[in-house]
Amino acid sequence: MYMADKTLIGRLNKCSVNTATLGHRSTIHAVVDNVARAGFGWIAPWRRDIEGVDLKKLKRQITDAGLRVSSLCRSTYFSAETGEEAAEAVEQNRRALEAASELEAKCFVLVVGGLPNNSRNLSSARQQVFEGISALLTHARRLNVPLALEPLHPMYAADRSCVSTLKQALSMCDAIAPHDAYLGVALDVYHIWWDPEIYEHIVQAGRAGQILGFHLSDWLKNTTDMLLDRGMMGDGVIDLPRLRKAAQQTGFDGPFEVEIFSRDNWWKKDEKIVLKECGQRLQSCC
Amino acid sequence: MYMADKTLIGRLNKCSVNTATLGHRSTIHAVVDNVARAGFGWIAPWRRDIEGVDLKKLKRQITDAGLRVSSLCRSTYFSAETGEEAAEAVEQNRRALEAASELEAKCFVLVVGGLPNNSRNLSSARQQVFEGISALLTHARRLNVPLALEPLHPMYAADRSCVSTLKQALSMCDAIAPHDAYLGVALDVYHIWWDPEIYEHIVQAGRAGQILGFHLSDWLKNTTDMLLDRGMMGDGVIDLPRLRKAAQQTGFDGPFEVEIFSRDNWWKKDEKIVLKECGQRLQSCC
Repeated sequence: MYMADKTLIGRLNKCSVNTATLGHRSTIHAVVDNVARAGFGWIAPWRRDIEGVDLKKLKRQITDAGLRVSSLCRSTYFSAETGEEAAEAVEQNRRALEAASELEAKCFVLVVGGLPNNSRNLSSARQQVFEGISALLTHARRLNVPLALEPLHPMYAADRSCVSTLKQALSMCDAIAPHDAYLGVALDVYHIWWDPEIYEHIVQAGRAGQILGFHLSDWLKNTTDMLLDRGMMGDGVIDLPRLRKAAQQTGFDGPFEVEIFSRDNWWKKDEKIVLKECGQRLQSCC
Repeated sequence: MYMADKTLIGRLNKCSVNTATLGHRSTIHAVVDNVARAGFGWIAPWRRDIEGVDLKKLKRQITDAGLRVSSLCRSTYFSAETGEEAAEAVEQNRRALEAASELEAKCFVLVVGGLPNNSRNLSSARQQVFEGISALLTHARRLNVPLALEPLHPMYAADRSCVSTLKQALSMCDAIAPHDAYLGVALDVYHIWWDPEIYEHIVQAGRAGQILGFHLSDWLKNTTDMLLDRGMMGDGVIDLPRLRKAAQQTGFDGPFEVEIFSRDNWWKKDEKIVLKECGQRLQSCC
């Protein structure tokens, strides 16, 4: 079957800016305006951006600016030292879901947590994650906000996510609630690009309608920091067009969300310059 | 079937010291003496340690010290920008195999290379690796030195190894030469501990007699450097006994090789202190 290559040229309305890309330096209100003026159709705030903010007012601003919310980032870690902490994480995530609901976010991104303190037991952490997501799912349905489980790069297995591959994430979703519209995955090229099985699992996820988010950045060959040295699209080695096409060929067509943590480079530049560069790179390198 | 837990207590004769653990500060001759005096039964030199060294003499020293060579580290990268470079890599690896043969190394460790310069094509790099190993295997058989393909942590996919999981390594071995005594894998806990499928693939590798090496160190939760901040066994979060037992239960029983790159910590300590600590940790934390 022939399918025209649906690049992102002229389609920034299909693209989103995750506010972390701008380094959380301005108010969310200023960021919303800048993102809209740069031509994007979507925005993805972090919970820290909306603390203490009147969400109804923010939602109105976002809508008036012509934007929609691609995702709310991100969950409190489910893995925990004690049962009480695990329950508290679900409660915090429930409250975050309420905010996501107010903003009509397309999904709530789940970063699930690594090993609890003093633990070397990945299986146990994964079981906690399974139970936490299961508990949260009821709230997700009620609040009409799908949960997007995001596998993180294996280099974060200890401290951020014991879910490390797309295959593992899909398998966990199926074990929790198969074919549930409120549970899917977020694909972040930075986390998954290295995986020798990535394309088959993108097909699997897409055919099941489980791709709820698609995050873009780039892997710099000489990465200097494991967390805060992501590259702008085109500056690294990820085959971004191939991953974008793979998702599209399953029916996914956005929003394509830029999420770049870059303490020593992009976070030091003017927000408007960063947004302009994001827009150009989405169209020329993805 | 009941199987007694074969810990490493009192069995340093089953354990090896990879010379990188000591930071390549002394001559290989001094290191051999220190490793033997610390009670180990094996040693694993790097090619840089034996450059310009009379290998027959070195082998005699190693034997006289009561040691054997668990592995020679490591291959020149197979992935390359040009066909000429790829051929040159095989040639350099053939020469390294001759050295490994002189030392009667139990295996030659293959670290296969990441993406060539200006490439974003992992599939193509993997094809080059496939072809390079295939070409080298003939020499491995002739020289009686098995090739141990080592999957590296996915965080090295760009610059060091496009083979990132044990499953992928085993699949590549099977595609090159199934059931070949001269082609197997090296398991390094640092590279594989995060993998949700690791135990099933250790079983698969062990049952096929393909585990040619087992490397130990630890993953520090607050890793500060992607290459040179490995932890001493027990200082990190890897479930070392579980991985050791998994390999043993397939029939593998050593050599267990300590390989710690630690520029700012262990490489600054006295070699004899490091060796003593390695011996103690192998017996208390693995």
